[in-house]
Amino acid sequence: MMELNSTDDGFEAAFAALLDMKRETDEDVDSQVAAIIADVRKRGDQALIGYTARFDRVELTAATLRISTAEVDEAVSACDTELITALKLAAKRIHAFHAKQLPKDYAFTDKVGVRLGLRWTAVQAAGLYVPGGTAAYPSSVLMNAIPAKAAGVERLVMVVPTPGGRLNPLVLAAARIAGIDEIYRVGGAQAVAALAYGTETIRPVDKIVGPGNAYVAAAKRRVFGQVGIDMIAGPSEILVVADGTNDPGWIAADLLSQAEHDTAAQSILITDDRAFGRRVVEAVESHLKTLPRAAMAKESWDRHGAIIVVPSIAESVPLIDRIAPEHLELAVDDPDGLAAKVRNAGAIFLGRYTPEAIGDYVGGPNHVLPTARSARFSSGLGVLDFMKRTTLLGCDSDSLAAIGPAAVTLAEAEGLGAHGLSVSIRLNPGDR
Amino acid sequence: MMELNSTDDGFEAAFAALLDMKRETDEDVDSQVAAIIADVRKRGDQALIGYTARFDRVELTAATLRISTAEVDEAVSACDTELITALKLAAKRIHAFHAKQLPKDYAFTDKVGVRLGLRWTAVQAAGLYVPGGTAAYPSSVLMNAIPAKAAGVERLVMVVPTPGGRLNPLVLAAARIAGIDEIYRVGGAQAVAALAYGTETIRPVDKIVGPGNAYVAAAKRRVFGQVGIDMIAGPSEILVVADGTNDPGWIAADLLSQAEHDTAAQSILITDDRAFGRRVVEAVESHLKTLPRAAMAKESWDRHGAIIVVPSIAESVPLIDRIAPEHLELAVDDPDGLAAKVRNAGAIFLGRYTPEAIGDYVGGPNHVLPTARSARFSSGLGVLDFMKRTTLLGCDSDSLAAIGPAAVTLAEAEGLGAHGLSVSIRLNPGDR
Repeated sequence: MMELNSTDDGFEAAFAALLDMKRETDEDVDSQVAAIIADVRKRGDQALIGYTARFDRVELTAATLRISTAEVDEAVSACDTELITALKLAAKRIHAFHAKQLPKDYAFTDKVGVRLGLRWTAVQAAGLYVPGGTAAYPSSVLMNAIPAKAAGVERLVMVVPTPGGRLNPLVLAAARIAGIDEIYRVGGAQAVAALAYGTETIRPVDKIVGPGNAYVAAAKRRVFGQVGIDMIAGPSEILVVADGTNDPGWIAADLLSQAEHDTAAQSILITDDRAFGRRVVEAVESHLKTLPRAAMAKESWDRHGAIIVVPSIAESVPLIDRIAPEHLELAVDDPDGLAAKVRNAGAIFLGRYTPEAIGDYVGGPNHVLPTARSARFSSGLGVLDFMKRTTLLGCDSDSLAAIGPAAVTLAEAEGLGAHGLSVSIRLNPGDR
Repeated sequence: MMELNSTDDGFEAAFAALLDMKRETDEDVDSQVAAIIADVRKRGDQALIGYTARFDRVELTAATLRISTAEVDEAVSACDTELITALKLAAKRIHAFHAKQLPKDYAFTDKVGVRLGLRWTAVQAAGLYVPGGTAAYPSSVLMNAIPAKAAGVERLVMVVPTPGGRLNPLVLAAARIAGIDEIYRVGGAQAVAALAYGTETIRPVDKIVGPGNAYVAAAKRRVFGQVGIDMIAGPSEILVVADGTNDPGWIAADLLSQAEHDTAAQSILITDDRAFGRRVVEAVESHLKTLPRAAMAKESWDRHGAIIVVPSIAESVPLIDRIAPEHLELAVDDPDGLAAKVRNAGAIFLGRYTPEAIGDYVGGPNHVLPTARSARFSSGLGVLDFMKRTTLLGCDSDSLAAIGPAAVTLAEAEGLGAHGLSVSIRLNPGDR
């Protein structure tokens, strides 16, 4: 864990180093992934079945690639009622938040009579990758699927590996609640290839979203163009801005809630009270004694954690914008006032009673958010990620006469004769 | 040029082959580009100056990297008044169309008292790559810059190579009209690297847009993550749907207006009148006799052009959606009715008096559009490409008590103890 003070000499260099800190380890799996994709394109289901036997130790046939409705029914009935109720509450709240993102079309006729418009349509079919094993989070199923359904995606296909034949029934319950249309028990680069190019059993989709390991990420990069993909997420991060009146134990828990995700996760505290910062460090140590994922959280906190002391909370703003955090928690007296000054953040959590984790599950906003400073230019997952725009333009002979000559002038200046001709031929029909 | 009939045996195979036709030739410049980017990161301005001397045969200093206001003034005054007027008309219309895309924030408090919101902000600084030489199109400067300015981007930086010291004055005039803030006379991978990482003279940006050659495309892919990038555009395409009452010469001009861009461009006609299709082919040959870029257009038309005959115009819809064309022209009696049935298209041109080229210049919608079937999942350039969303969530002690227990339940089911703790510690402050 690193301690910085914004008024120290050398702060700028230390802060720049913090921003540049590389936390991910690149795993070069690209050539393996390329071979797997080529094989799935060539051999379809048989390739999927082969890789699933090899990587997941599960013997499938074309008939058992898909998880049946009866299997989902069974999984749902195996789940604790309290958990199903919690998932349903989460789904309802996520849907309510995302439904408000549905964009509006527009259409107008301008002064010279040109008709103009912009129309949004949903992507027809989308694929959702869900990791298997310990990283199979039902909350992620909801967060990825519900925006797609809110957008109007008609066919939402989930792929999930079942290593050793095991699958968390809660993941299937979340899929059912979110309205997933088809589920296949395949994973890895082979599942991404199947979604992008199709096999005998799995029809291709237009867009693929969802988290995955290095193979999945490399496969998504490779099939991009054939289909759309979401961002490739990096390790999780939180930036907590907290004044000295907070309970150090609360803030320590928030920092650890990111740290426990991954040894590459990063938790940063900005405070105007150096003594408070010390108390938070102590509370982190105290929490670590009892937390189930303490080893992971400790390694992340030791390697990537930071406390930055600033003279006043207001002076945190330029630092926040440079960090451009995935999650920003504002545990201060006037969180709304401070939030209004922030430009770059994936999601903001306002006030002392809004721990980031509430947003991971039941708040309503998405938990798929831009990492690694990309909140400077990108956004969390939303309804628009499953939609696309088409523009519309309509001239009649009069309106073409009004604006056409300028187009001919510009086309000729750019040396594009057929462009000019296609307009001028309609301006002077007698000349043809 | 290929002729297909949708009722022929073997149509499906031929159509699938048309969709899969690879028109681009990959040029492997990635390792060269990696070295250039590393060098610019290391040596900054000196690297830029070196590459510009080598590739563009122009000797620069740190002081002359930037194109001065006086130089822009001079360029503008060298331009023909008619051209400046045409550019200004185009800019005004593009701005009017794009200003309507400014998205709305939302904020609400739900029944249990949770405050929720979504806020859009503009990317702070954006870079626009403009190719030099023959591909330097002033219209592209307007199409890339105006959405950024409409979004609220504060610092818009243009880079443009000046091979042999030459630069089209119209490009500078367009930059002035579009409100570009800084212009640097550098190009290639080195310019992309400078925009992404900054040098002594060029401050870094958050997002890079604009077309370029294989080096520029490879550099954009490499700096993605450090900055946002726009789509990597492929060769241009047009799909014209025309009944037999059209003037074959008009439709032929439209097909050629894409074909003249690039030998890899593709022009497709769908018609319900086979004899009309033949007349269009003849008209293409006739136009080719007089067009300045006839050799380019002929090669593109011969290699990639296609005419598809369908029994009725209505039957074109599923073919259109599978082609997902960049440009879709509907030269039919009821273009609006047909357009309403189409799902996948970058831009639609309605009716017999709306040649695609009018949209390249002065229509108002953007001419930077998704190619290679990507209109299935992506959109033309717009204001939203220069903005990003931040979500907001705020609980107080009561609303956290309402939804917090479900979050704790789910966190525990996912094995994330610190997530659960960060919520539960606030639910039962007495317990800590």
